[in-house]
Amino acid sequence: MAGGGDKLKLLSTWFSPFGSRVQLALHLKGLSYEYVEEDLMNKSQLLLESNPVHKKVPVLFHRGKALCESMVIVDYIEEAFPDAGQPLLPSDPYKRAIARFWVAFMETKLVEPWMRMLDGTRTRAEMTEGVKQMLAAVATLEGALGQCSKGKPFFGGDSIGYVDVALGGLLVWVRASEVLLGVKFLDAARTPLLAAWSERFASLDAAKAALPDFGRVIKHAMMRRGAAAAVLAANN
Amino acid sequence: MAGGGDKLKLLSTWFSPFGSRVQLALHLKGLSYEYVEEDLMNKSQLLLESNPVHKKVPVLFHRGKALCESMVIVDYIEEAFPDAGQPLLPSDPYKRAIARFWVAFMETKLVEPWMRMLDGTRTRAEMTEGVKQMLAAVATLEGALGQCSKGKPFFGGDSIGYVDVALGGLLVWVRASEVLLGVKFLDAARTPLLAAWSERFASLDAAKAALPDFGRVIKHAMMRRGAAAAVLAANN
Repeated sequence: MAGGGDKLKLLSTWFSPFGSRVQLALHLKGLSYEYVEEDLMNKSQLLLESNPVHKKVPVLFHRGKALCESMVIVDYIEEAFPDAGQPLLPSDPYKRAIARFWVAFMETKLVEPWMRMLDGTRTRAEMTEGVKQMLAAVATLEGALGQCSKGKPFFGGDSIGYVDVALGGLLVWVRASEVLLGVKFLDAARTPLLAAWSERFASLDAAKAALPDFGRVIKHAMMRRGAAAAVLAANN
Repeated sequence: MAGGGDKLKLLSTWFSPFGSRVQLALHLKGLSYEYVEEDLMNKSQLLLESNPVHKKVPVLFHRGKALCESMVIVDYIEEAFPDAGQPLLPSDPYKRAIARFWVAFMETKLVEPWMRMLDGTRTRAEMTEGVKQMLAAVATLEGALGQCSKGKPFFGGDSIGYVDVALGGLLVWVRASEVLLGVKFLDAARTPLLAAWSERFASLDAAKAALPDFGRVIKHAMMRRGAAAAVLAANN
């Protein structure tokens, strides 16, 4: 049995932005865990059995149970280890709702169009529409950061919280997408708060420990794009 | 100012399945509230100001604050009124994560393709694909109900919980979509557990109080479809 006992085990892929969210939460809580690399080109029995619905990383194992979906796992870490490290969600129900609202926004308005664009099968018009949707979402998040942080460094205030973890996990991929798509998403002129936030976020120990290397992500994405183009060409 | 004080006020539209989720949660908690009907064809200043990001119902007002997004509101009701009525989420972090996993599944795999289909601008091929996705999601939810309920009547076990509220809010629209699309989603032969669950759910006092009338929803949807067809015809 995978992950029996109290020891935490994370099944992920080094470049997964969703895996990064979980790693961020684990680091912020000061929880040690075993990391197991998954090969998404040749999915393991462990992945297929532990996440039969989506067959996706990350999966966190704890006490013989498997947990799936990045932000559901972050919620679990917050609730199963209430005394470890810093709280990611505030105690006030209204402030918790605001954090959850922005994470739900991010999932549907930023991540969803972004994932669609990255599947390598989109027309030029669909790519243009996707970039437009992402830029609109980033502009809204710029306003959200102003409202949530109230002049403090993070969405969570003085320390990073639930929204920071959700967005921060994506950060290297957002930067990589700027190169891949030729569009600046976090821009000192258009989104000064988010641009400064991203610098602050990237300099945190937890971010350094949890996020993948930018150059390696770019190389991986280029390779994947090349493979997708080859498949498309072969099919035409 | 809207909704000042401790009194709860719900801004919704009578046919909104997402508003129904919030009404279900309020009824299950035994919380009284003022209901304000929104006209989505002529959105009120109150809606535009209280949900500037999505401009959608439901919005719940409490203590002078506005809460948006149906399941974020349900979380809020659960956390702001811990001693009212029955708990919607179990206390065990793993069981909470399972409930959240299935709600996240529902939002992306059932609600998302469904909303896309109902916008009235889809091609026949897109409609067929949407129905296929919805049927696959329902089949997965049938398995989820078996796993979550363990022979008990609801996803939440003996009493209705978080997943029941999320799915139950949609129930009248799922039934209406069966008529509108000519497809049986909850079927005694293919999805016996969900079919029996839907009967049990619909007979609850909270469901009777919170869900819209089936016949009225059908009539409304037919009218809306007629209007969408007229717009399409005028544009072609």
